[in-house]
Amino acid sequence: MFDVNDIRAEFPILSRQVNGKPLVYLDNGASSQKPQVVIDAITRAYSEEYANVHRGLHYLSNLATEKYEGVRGIVAKFLNAPSEDEIVMNTGTTEGINTVAYGWAMPRMEAGDEIVLSTMEHHANIVPWHFLRERQGIVLKWVDPEVDGSLDPQKVIDAIGSKTKLVAITQMSNVLGTVVDVKTICAAAKERGVPVLVDGSQGSVHMPVDVQDIGCDFYAITGHKLYGPSGSGAIFIAKERLAEMRPFMGGGDMIREVSKDAVSYNDTPMMLEAGTPGIVQQIGLGVALDWMMGVGMENIAAHEAALRDYAQERLLGLNWLQVQGTAPGKGAIFSFTMSGAAHAHDISTILDKKGVAVRAGHHCCGPLMEHLGITASCRASFAAYNTTAEVDALVDALELAQELLG
Amino acid sequence: MFDVNDIRAEFPILSRQVNGKPLVYLDNGASSQKPQVVIDAITRAYSEEYANVHRGLHYLSNLATEKYEGVRGIVAKFLNAPSEDEIVMNTGTTEGINTVAYGWAMPRMEAGDEIVLSTMEHHANIVPWHFLRERQGIVLKWVDPEVDGSLDPQKVIDAIGSKTKLVAITQMSNVLGTVVDVKTICAAAKERGVPVLVDGSQGSVHMPVDVQDIGCDFYAITGHKLYGPSGSGAIFIAKERLAEMRPFMGGGDMIREVSKDAVSYNDTPMMLEAGTPGIVQQIGLGVALDWMMGVGMENIAAHEAALRDYAQERLLGLNWLQVQGTAPGKGAIFSFTMSGAAHAHDISTILDKKGVAVRAGHHCCGPLMEHLGITASCRASFAAYNTTAEVDALVDALELAQELLG
Repeated sequence: MFDVNDIRAEFPILSRQVNGKPLVYLDNGASSQKPQVVIDAITRAYSEEYANVHRGLHYLSNLATEKYEGVRGIVAKFLNAPSEDEIVMNTGTTEGINTVAYGWAMPRMEAGDEIVLSTMEHHANIVPWHFLRERQGIVLKWVDPEVDGSLDPQKVIDAIGSKTKLVAITQMSNVLGTVVDVKTICAAAKERGVPVLVDGSQGSVHMPVDVQDIGCDFYAITGHKLYGPSGSGAIFIAKERLAEMRPFMGGGDMIREVSKDAVSYNDTPMMLEAGTPGIVQQIGLGVALDWMMGVGMENIAAHEAALRDYAQERLLGLNWLQVQGTAPGKGAIFSFTMSGAAHAHDISTILDKKGVAVRAGHHCCGPLMEHLGITASCRASFAAYNTTAEVDALVDALELAQELLG
Repeated sequence: MFDVNDIRAEFPILSRQVNGKPLVYLDNGASSQKPQVVIDAITRAYSEEYANVHRGLHYLSNLATEKYEGVRGIVAKFLNAPSEDEIVMNTGTTEGINTVAYGWAMPRMEAGDEIVLSTMEHHANIVPWHFLRERQGIVLKWVDPEVDGSLDPQKVIDAIGSKTKLVAITQMSNVLGTVVDVKTICAAAKERGVPVLVDGSQGSVHMPVDVQDIGCDFYAITGHKLYGPSGSGAIFIAKERLAEMRPFMGGGDMIREVSKDAVSYNDTPMMLEAGTPGIVQQIGLGVALDWMMGVGMENIAAHEAALRDYAQERLLGLNWLQVQGTAPGKGAIFSFTMSGAAHAHDISTILDKKGVAVRAGHHCCGPLMEHLGITASCRASFAAYNTTAEVDALVDALELAQELLG
């Protein structure tokens, strides 16, 4: 039974006040709060069970290694990956996509080759490809969303040509909440022999993910959005693609042998994990994913769908508010601007005075902002612990902002 | 007043037992334990003060940003960097050196150019340069240590030729404990117009560091060895070198503007920090460095010098033990093998039964192991909280190992 009050009770920060008001935390698109089990796991790791992993043979090192390596299997289960050997652990989506850009795309692509991506991508899924454009003459092909923020998978498929070497696409827009039909895109891309990278930074937080069902080649996640520690993360890389990769970062653990004249590399996924990893963060990520699976991804999705419906109804009822993105089946992420001169930053500052935390800015989505014809918006993004009462608090605070700024 | 018992009392893990014996943690070269203030800072960050940094305007985001950005100044103070703008925050030395390899060396070096490094380097300061050898035809020039493990700075200087574009060298060997006279090397390299990267992974833990006095261009540190969280770290990059760098990883925060056709980058150091950083780890690193400066780096160095003297005397007294590295002024790091067939892994396993945690293996130093003519050694590495009684415990456990394996 999903009871949001029980869920809330697990997050110590949610009982705090901000500016004399109860915290209404609606900045989950940027990062989510952490349940006590995750915080406790970190404390225990440092207080009782800490050592470096892999290279030790003593008790604490073996214990830390066992806990750390166990996370690989948890991530594989969370994403329904065929094997935990297809999970590369890292610090989050940014490192994950850069690993693909440097380790897979750069050595395999040449001037004139194309990457297809949507205009809704986050900078983490844009800038690494701009590097390839700047440095190697790769061409970026953009697919715009529809007026309601939905993305027509057929338009993405139509953008795939004979020079396309990769499709890089988000599963859920961090601004519009749009859910992309990545499964249809992957099936068509596969027919054309084109690998697909799915940015799962938002999607993995809000819906059950099955990388085998999606049929993607790469699926990147970020732990700090998944109720886990900052600096934690992973990327699923399908076996066929792993075999094509060269190392990204060099250092300890990712090698087999190093001499003065030669170096040979470890098997994947270790080949892609250089140096001492984020041991305790990854242990915390494992606990966070177990926590999510314990709550049930279907339950989280259903709860957030109800929040989305309620929030959408209330926000669309404010005729001085422009909501960007109303695609059917979207996630509980709302980007909005206000009629008149009110700047997103001013709105968010007023909301903050009422304890309501939202984000204001370009949300790391330059091309989308340009497409929408705005420079900034406010964004309220919901998580498993949010309530309809918090939607009301948001609306109340917005009404105050409209009064003061409108 | 430095009192090792007071210090020990701050580290909760040191009161635990391992295999029924009090933990004697001598694996500090791999990673150090964490004082309660660091653990508490992490707990507080997640329980009361957590949000994503930089891009928010709400209370918690501002608070987290202030705490996170404050660490840049703490690192600058710890290293005596001229400005906190010369501190790039990251996940540790491996990422730091890869940032230099990808962001500075790769675009500036061509086939036949040379990098001078010592045979004592850790793989983190070797493999990124092997990438340049493999991918761009860069030549690696190695300088061997003397028989006692010391490194003659003149030999490093003599290795610098007209094609040398970089000297990459450790300040302290993680195997031999050798302290390298990096200041003399930097002065000579500077005269020849050759930048120097100093791997401070070990050096920064055991002695006061002043990058201005050293005169280096790059100085990399790793938080988890500095009594800080796993996945934390930073690199000092001198202003002149920063100006020459191109971005390493692409993503949020490191850009100024992103459109479909173009990208422009943020100022340094932000240009080199892509995506959501390891917020809480870095906050923990700041607390750890403050803790070290509070104890006093001179005090830590003096305590460890006494430990080194005592350990050296006791270990050199075991005529069936071969200690690698007896350079004058070395750090309290002892690598050793045993006469006969005893394998390092077997020795460490026996030590572990007595609660003594040491590392066994190649210590991520392939070329050095080859130079020493061994495939593996045991390594006992000391920290601020270790005691002469723990040296005795090590020797007792070694005597047992000699009895069983010798």
